Amino acid sequence: MAAAQGVRLAGTPNKDAPMTEPLRRKRGGRGGNTRRSDTRAIQQLPWEMLELIDRPTEPLSEEGVRAIDGAAMRILSEIGIDFLHEGARAHLKAAGAEVEPGGVRVRFDPAMVREFTARAPSRFTITPRNPERTVTIGGRIQVNGNVASPPNYSDLEGGRRPGTRAAFRDLLRLSQYFNCIHLMSGYPVEPVDLHASVRHLDCLYDKLTLTDKVCHAYSLGVERVEDAMEMVRIAGGLTEEEFAATPRMFTNINSSSPLKHDWPMLDGAMRMAARGQMVSVTPFTLAGAMAPVTLAGAIAQQTAEALAAIVLLQAIRPGTPVVMGSFTSNVDMKSGAPAFGTPEYMRATQMSGQMARFYGLPLRASNACAANCPDAQAAWESAFSLWAVQSAHANLVYHAAGWLEGGLVASLEKFVMDCETLQQMAAYNRPIGVTEEDLAVEAIAEVGPQGHFFGVAHTQARYETAFYAPFLSDWRNFETWAESGAVRTPERANAIARKILAEFEPPALAEDRREALADFVARRKAEGGAPTDF
Amino acid sequence: MAAAQGVRLAGTPNKDAPMTEPLRRKRGGRGGNTRRSDTRAIQQLPWEMLELIDRPTEPLSEEGVRAIDGAAMRILSEIGIDFLHEGARAHLKAAGAEVEPGGVRVRFDPAMVREFTARAPSRFTITPRNPERTVTIGGRIQVNGNVASPPNYSDLEGGRRPGTRAAFRDLLRLSQYFNCIHLMSGYPVEPVDLHASVRHLDCLYDKLTLTDKVCHAYSLGVERVEDAMEMVRIAGGLTEEEFAATPRMFTNINSSSPLKHDWPMLDGAMRMAARGQMVSVTPFTLAGAMAPVTLAGAIAQQTAEALAAIVLLQAIRPGTPVVMGSFTSNVDMKSGAPAFGTPEYMRATQMSGQMARFYGLPLRASNACAANCPDAQAAWESAFSLWAVQSAHANLVYHAAGWLEGGLVASLEKFVMDCETLQQMAAYNRPIGVTEEDLAVEAIAEVGPQGHFFGVAHTQARYETAFYAPFLSDWRNFETWAESGAVRTPERANAIARKILAEFEPPALAEDRREALADFVARRKAEGGAPTDF
Repeated sequence: MAAAQGVRLAGTPNKDAPMTEPLRRKRGGRGGNTRRSDTRAIQQLPWEMLELIDRPTEPLSEEGVRAIDGAAMRILSEIGIDFLHEGARAHLKAAGAEVEPGGVRVRFDPAMVREFTARAPSRFTITPRNPERTVTIGGRIQVNGNVASPPNYSDLEGGRRPGTRAAFRDLLRLSQYFNCIHLMSGYPVEPVDLHASVRHLDCLYDKLTLTDKVCHAYSLGVERVEDAMEMVRIAGGLTEEEFAATPRMFTNINSSSPLKHDWPMLDGAMRMAARGQMVSVTPFTLAGAMAPVTLAGAIAQQTAEALAAIVLLQAIRPGTPVVMGSFTSNVDMKSGAPAFGTPEYMRATQMSGQMARFYGLPLRASNACAANCPDAQAAWESAFSLWAVQSAHANLVYHAAGWLEGGLVASLEKFVMDCETLQQMAAYNRPIGVTEEDLAVEAIAEVGPQGHFFGVAHTQARYETAFYAPFLSDWRNFETWAESGAVRTPERANAIARKILAEFEPPALAEDRREALADFVARRKAEGGAPTDF
Repeated sequence: MAAAQGVRLAGTPNKDAPMTEPLRRKRGGRGGNTRRSDTRAIQQLPWEMLELIDRPTEPLSEEGVRAIDGAAMRILSEIGIDFLHEGARAHLKAAGAEVEPGGVRVRFDPAMVREFTARAPSRFTITPRNPERTVTIGGRIQVNGNVASPPNYSDLEGGRRPGTRAAFRDLLRLSQYFNCIHLMSGYPVEPVDLHASVRHLDCLYDKLTLTDKVCHAYSLGVERVEDAMEMVRIAGGLTEEEFAATPRMFTNINSSSPLKHDWPMLDGAMRMAARGQMVSVTPFTLAGAMAPVTLAGAIAQQTAEALAAIVLLQAIRPGTPVVMGSFTSNVDMKSGAPAFGTPEYMRATQMSGQMARFYGLPLRASNACAANCPDAQAAWESAFSLWAVQSAHANLVYHAAGWLEGGLVASLEKFVMDCETLQQMAAYNRPIGVTEEDLAVEAIAEVGPQGHFFGVAHTQARYETAFYAPFLSDWRNFETWAESGAVRTPERANAIARKILAEFEPPALAEDRREALADFVARRKAEGGAPTDF
C-alpha cells in the first residue's frame, strides 16, 4: 500500500485529496496502477440499471388497495371519462365501453377494464439505437430519465432565462454522460429559440446524435410523433417491421384532470401503441385542485384516469407496453402552487406503487421539488422524492436530474447534484454480505483493543471498493474547505458540469445514418414541419 | 369560505401569503376565527411523540441477523472487551464473566450475555421535571434530541467560532421551543467560556431553567454525573426514592472502539444505572478505522461492544433502562474523515435496528452529516440520515437538529432546517384514511370533467388540515420569491431562529426549586466543582 496513506480523522487537513480526483493507490494483489486519466471529469458508477433490494413501503393495507380499486372502478363505470378524440371513442366502443351518444363521455364496465388491463406486460425492454443502452421497465428495476419540458433554464453564470438550443444540447450531453441517467425523456429544456413548427426535428436530431440512449416523443399532434418515430427508426437502421417488433422509444401522456383525455395526447399515444411503442399515462391529479383533497380520493381518480387510457391502448394493440404514471401531490393551500417532495407526495407515490402492482403494471414517478434555487430546500425535497420513488418501487423515474421550481426551470447545477444522489441510491441498493469474511472476526481479533483497522489485510483488500465515493460531496474538514475557498455545493456542481461539457464526446453513430437523419430533417423542414396550433 | 381564495398554480404571484403566516381563513362548521396571534414565530406541529407506521427496512435476512449475533458472541467470548474500571470488572466477575487475572480483558459466555441482556426493558418512559414532557423509549415510538457536544457554534451573523454560554443558551431555547425536539441530549454546543470544573453546574442550571424536557448527564467523572442527578432531582422536587423509582434522565456512553470501555464513561453509566436512570451505549465503530471495513463486521463489533456494557449495567441493577446505540458509518478512504448520511450509514443504521430488535432493546441513531455549511449537501446527507433512522425504527434520534461538519459545529440555521424536516417526518407518519369519505367518489362526480376541486364542500371541510404546512420551505413562485429578495433557506432559517429567540419565554419552574438549584450550584462552585483531569 502507499505508505503515506494513513487514516486521518476530522480536524486533520488533507490537502492531497481533492474531491474529484480518483484514488491513486495501487490495488493490492493486482499490481496494476489504477490511476485514471486526468481527462476524466469525475469518477462515476458504471452504466447499470438499479435493482431495488428492499421491500416496497406499503401505506395501504390489502383492503385499502381494494377500496381504491373499487373507487376507481366506480369512477370508470358510474362517472366516466371524457375522451376528446373520435377515433379513441370508436376504439373504446368497439371494445365494449359505453360511449355517450353524441357526447365524449366514456363509461367502462369493471370487468372490461380488468380484461384489457391484463393484456399489458408487467415487464418489458426498450431498445435504443445503441442496444447496449437497452433498458428494462418493470419488476424491481428502476431507471432514470432526465428532467423534461421546463420552459426555462438556469446556470450560475447566466441565471434564469428561457431555454435555448444551446442549453438543450448541454443538458443532453450531461444526460448522455451520466451513467445514472438511463434514458432521455422529454426535452430537458424547451428550446424556445427554435420555431415550434420545426423544433421537434432539430431536437430529435440533437438527441439522436448527442446521445445513444432510449428516446422520447412528445404526443403533440400527428406530425411530431410520426416524425419522431421515423427518426428513431432511421437512427437505429431499422426496417419498419424491426421498429414495430419491439419497443424502441416511448411517449408520456397526461390526462387533463379531472376525468379528461385531450386530443393531442390521445392521438400521439394511439399512434405509438399502433406501432408497439411504450406509452406512460400520467394523470395530473394535484390533490385539492384537479383531484380530491384526500390522498385516497386523488389516487382513486389518478388510477381511473390512467386505466381508461390504458384500456384504450390495449384495445388498439394488445400487449402495448404501458406504464402507470403517478404525479399526485398536494398543492400549497395558501397559494395554490403545487408542492413536491412533501410527506403527501411520498405517500401518494407509495400508494400509486401499490395500485400499479395490483394491476400488474410498471410505475412511473418523479424526482420533483418546489424550491426556487438549488439550495437546502431543493435538496431535502428532492431527497424525499427519491425516497418516495425508491420505497414505492417506481420503475421509471421521470425528472430524475435537473428539476427545480415545480418543473418550471431546468438547472445545470441541480442536474449534477441529482446525479450525485442518484448514484447514492444505486450504492444503497448494493447487497450486504454476511459471509465469514464479511463478519471479520479474525480481523477484529488481529487488531485487538489497541489497534487500528486501516493497516490490516482485511481492510487493505477491500478499502478501494468498500464504500461509495461521491464525486460532488466535499468531505474535507472545515479548515481545508475554508482555505480552498469555502466552495458550496452548487458552485462545485457547476465546475463539474463545465468539465464534463468541455470533455464531452458524442457517442458513435454511423455516418450514413447521421446523413439520413439530416436529410429527413431537411426534407421535413422544407415541407413546413408541424402545425403550431395544437 | 373566503371568496378571494382561489387556487393559483405556479407562475401566479401570491404576495398575500408570506411563508410563516398562519392561515387566516375561517374554519367552516366551527364559526370561530382560527387566526393566530402575530407574536407566534411560526406555526409548528403540536408536542407529540412520533409513532412509526411503516414496517422497518431490513437489509439482513433472518440468517444474516443470526450470523452477526454469532460473530458478536465470538467477539465477546473469544476475544473479549477491555474494561478500564476495576469496579466494573468486579461486577462482571461476580456475574459470571471471565476476567483476565491481573488484566482488564473480560470475556463473556454467550448464555450469560443473553441472560443479562434479557433483563433490560424493551420499552420504558423517562419523566422530566414537567411530567407532560414524559417520553417513551421503545416500540414504534421515535423521539428526537438536539445536537450534542460540538465544540464550535455557527450562525450567519458571526460565522463559525468556539461555543459560548450565550450560544449554548440560544440552542437550549430552540430545543425547548420546537415540539419536534423531545428531549435535551448533551450540550448543544460546548460553552468553552465556562471553566471546565464548573461548566456542568452552569449548564445543568441553564438546562433545567430554560427547558422542561428530559435531561442528559455527561459521564465524565464522579462529580459531574452525581451533580447532574442531584440537580435533576431538585428541579423535579423529588425525594431520592422518587428519583430512583423511575427513569428521570439519561446518559450516553461511547466505547473506545475497538473493544474497550474507558473509566469515565463506565463510572458514570454505573452510577446512573445504580439509581435506575437510562444509559445509552453507543460504540464508536467507524468502518475502516475503528471497526472492520465491512458493514457486517462493523455491526458485529458494535453489537459486541454495546452488549458488553449492557450486561454490566444489568448486573448492577436488573431492569436498568438501556438503549443500544448505533454510530457505525464509513470513513472517507481518501482522507480518513468520517462520513455521514451515506448509503453505508443508512444500511448500518438499519442493520443496527435489526440487531436491537433481535435483543429486545431500543435503538439510538443520529441525524448526522459531513457537510461544512448548511447547503444542499448538508440537506441531502441529513435527509438520508433521517430516512435511515425512520426505516431502521430508531427509538432515540440523537443530534436530530443542528449538527454539521461531522459534529464539530452546531449551526443555528441547520437547527431550524432540521426541525422543518423532522416535522415532515412526523407528517409522513400520519395514517392514511380510506373510508368512503376519503375515497371521495361523490366529490369526483360533483366536480366532473369541467370543474375544480377547490370550491366543493369535500375540499372546504378538509383543506386547512389536509396537508402538512411547512414553516421554512418557500413555495412561492420564482418571480415572487425573486422580488422579495431571493432569500435562500439558511437566511430564512436564521430569521425564524431570531424571531423564536426574541419571543422565547422559559417554561414555568417553581421559585423554590429554582432557588434550590441556584443554591446547589453556588455551593458546589464554592467546593471547587469537578476535577478537570478526566
